[in-house]
Amino acid sequence: MKDQIRILGIDDGPFKFNQKSVLVIGVIMRIPTYIEGICRTRVSVDGKDANKILENIIKKSNYKDQIRLIMLDGVALGGFNVVDIEKLYHATEIPVTTITRTEPDLQMIKNTLKNHFSDWAARWKIINNLELVKVLTNYNPIYIKYIGISKSEVQRLIKLSTIRGVLPEPIRVAHLIATAMVKGESSGRA
Amino acid sequence: MKDQIRILGIDDGPFKFNQKSVLVIGVIMRIPTYIEGICRTRVSVDGKDANKILENIIKKSNYKDQIRLIMLDGVALGGFNVVDIEKLYHATEIPVTTITRTEPDLQMIKNTLKNHFSDWAARWKIINNLELVKVLTNYNPIYIKYIGISKSEVQRLIKLSTIRGVLPEPIRVAHLIATAMVKGESSGRA
Repeated sequence: MKDQIRILGIDDGPFKFNQKSVLVIGVIMRIPTYIEGICRTRVSVDGKDANKILENIIKKSNYKDQIRLIMLDGVALGGFNVVDIEKLYHATEIPVTTITRTEPDLQMIKNTLKNHFSDWAARWKIINNLELVKVLTNYNPIYIKYIGISKSEVQRLIKLSTIRGVLPEPIRVAHLIATAMVKGESSGRA
Repeated sequence: MKDQIRILGIDDGPFKFNQKSVLVIGVIMRIPTYIEGICRTRVSVDGKDANKILENIIKKSNYKDQIRLIMLDGVALGGFNVVDIEKLYHATEIPVTTITRTEPDLQMIKNTLKNHFSDWAARWKIINNLELVKVLTNYNPIYIKYIGISKSEVQRLIKLSTIRGVLPEPIRVAHLIATAMVKGESSGRA
């Protein structure tokens, strides 16, 4: 019998900094590629509502009890609306991982936060929380943080859900949908 | 070497008849399930612009030369904005098929057209054009019309692109995306 693993991938669409909010898309996929559900929401640009909004869409999902892992493209949505994945894990009881294709320049992020946010220390604490782990793939490495799941299991799920390149399908498809909705079209090509 | 077949699936989102236009989503899939591109557009509810708008999005697609087949969920978008697939085929030079899960009640459609459209005869002619073919699947039969492709080839492509149930992935996913964008969420469950 097949191991029916469902992963929720989340990504935001492109936006300009004069926008108040940004489109966020969630894709529930039975890995490797079968889409079972899609949802949309919005979070504020540079706001602080990302955790609460993600919590809400996850809690009301038909698939909540079957989601094995939540994958986020990066550590924040809508600019610096940072996602506290430890808090998200405890609120939803679903393991969470962030995935980025480039190693975050933490010093630059810290400086940017300091220059733009009076509450920079709180945001920085969330971003800098948990160890950043470099994961080798057949192509370029990716960088992840994770909670509620072992390192070997999160790596296994990432591998099982990746078809081409380095991005797992749930966040690759969430990205394609969010981009198409904002720009009119999107393609997997660079 | 794998046969890399790309299919464009098109479906509209839910709408109310007091709306002027309806969201239409196109999904380019490398069958059976790999999404390569997504686009969105709108057509008018009960209007006559569906052909022209589909032509435009197809002609400007990066994947135009690689699309083997265009699949439409039904014979019209946005109510009775009927798609003349023969015309679409000649304009794009890409074979087209319509797919429906229930056998259309042609007499009821004709009556509805007569009651609501002064140009009912022109719309009816397009809807009633081409033979409707019943295709058996492992589940329920589906009903198709097609142009620019042989019956055996269109049946082969439908079968190759169907994972669960009877709807091929390109139109199943286009439907999920369009529904989620309008309603906030969508799921493959009945």
